[in-house]
Amino acid sequence: RCTSTLRPRFASDTDEATVTPALTPLLATSGGRWTLASEGRALERSFRFKTFAKTWDFMTAVALQCKVENHHPEWSNAYNTAFIRWTTHDPRGLSAKDVGLAAACDAMAKAF
Amino acid sequence: RCTSTLRPRFASDTDEATVTPALTPLLATSGGRWTLASEGRALERSFRFKTFAKTWDFMTAVALQCKVENHHPEWSNAYNTAFIRWTTHDPRGLSAKDVGLAAACDAMAKAF
Amino acid sequence: RCTSTLRPRFASDTDEATVTPALTPLLATSGGRWTLASEGRALERSFRFKTFAKTWDFMTAVALQCKVENHHPEWSNAYNTAFIRWTTHDPRGLSAKDVGLAAACDAMAKAF
Amino acid sequence: RCTSTLRPRFASDTDEATVTPALTPLLATSGGRWTLASEGRALERSFRFKTFAKTWDFMTAVALQCKVENHHPEWSNAYNTAFIRWTTHDPRGLSAKDVGLAAACDAMAKAF
Repeated sequence: RCTSTLRPRFASDTDEATVTPALTPLLATSGGRWTLASEGRALERSFRFKTFAKTWDFMTAVALQCKVENHHPEWSNAYNTAFIRWTTHDPRGLSAKDVGLAAACDAMAKAF
Repeated sequence: RCTSTLRPRFASDTDEATVTPALTPLLATSGGRWTLASEGRALERSFRFKTFAKTWDFMTAVALQCKVENHHPEWSNAYNTAFIRWTTHDPRGLSAKDVGLAAACDAMAKAF
Repeated sequence: RCTSTLRPRFASDTDEATVTPALTPLLATSGGRWTLASEGRALERSFRFKTFAKTWDFMTAVALQCKVENHHPEWSNAYNTAFIRWTTHDPRGLSAKDVGLAAACDAMAKAF
Repeated sequence: RCTSTLRPRFASDTDEATVTPALTPLLATSGGRWTLASEGRALERSFRFKTFAKTWDFMTAVALQCKVENHHPEWSNAYNTAFIRWTTHDPRGLSAKDVGLAAACDAMAKAF
């Protein structure tokens, strides 16, 4: 797979014109830290912290935001790293919530 | 005690000119929800949520922010209410962190 | 008030014969750390930890147990101390849950 | 791979005679819910809960235990499922902590 040519595939009810300007700066191809995956339908990024405690605090902050927005990632953790994947299942593809929560993760990670 | 005439007493290293405009809109006397206590050296407010789970989520969000800023409230909880009191001990009085975290509490409470 | 003569007052639906043997070793009068308050209707204790982070972890463990048992304390926190008060409101007095959760707090506090 | 013949491979400093009786009842081959993976060096299991909130509460309880024992899983979460993998890296293989924490996960999961 050639990530450089992968293009975002938005969920059918997502307004591409609104979401694209929010998505672009998040992508590694624009200097961000997220990469497109699953044929452009998902955003992925890993985070590394100093300790498990800080990693867990970050994940707790993300989990609280997930409850607030009722939108949840697929994510994993091993000691001081967290891997987060945002995608929307119904309808399938990237949604405004995926992009917004990816940006929120970047902001929250800076604090920990 | 007449709360209407209670005036804020800032910590000696706090820039009153900067913090006052941030403090004023938080106060009940200006339509906000916080009241001055401890001779103007503390800000107090209670929050009520639908359930213990939501109350605890709110408190968890506040606790994470406390870790990030290394500044901690005196606070209590009984079922679906949380009472929060911000003050600074060294030097004594209201500080920019107290005012900033009180405002952050208001913002976080809206989400839960 | 003379705490040495304060006797527990159980909720009307609480089996005193069962709960008393669990309560007694928790009380300061028997070498435990809890004291009776509110005319014998509440159990109170404070806990001190090394850091806010450890205090919060302890409180989080207690909060999870509260959700599991659907029974909640009145409690407060200031930096590295937590004060916990167990009582039952309906019917009023000490219940088996109060005593069980007080004992659980002691056990959990040792871990942090 | 034939899981039915996979045997546990313990870390070199782990007392096999002590840990084996604790491990055996956890394994699917003995009616438990965990399976051996990574050539017998890891224990894996997934958990499913009613809601994300309950799943997160369970994971929080596990994370607190990880801090207490300073031993951490590789784990992932998607909405109401959690997948947990216990293994020890230094020295490599299953350790008493892996087996103890796997059993603790089973116990904690029942509460949520």
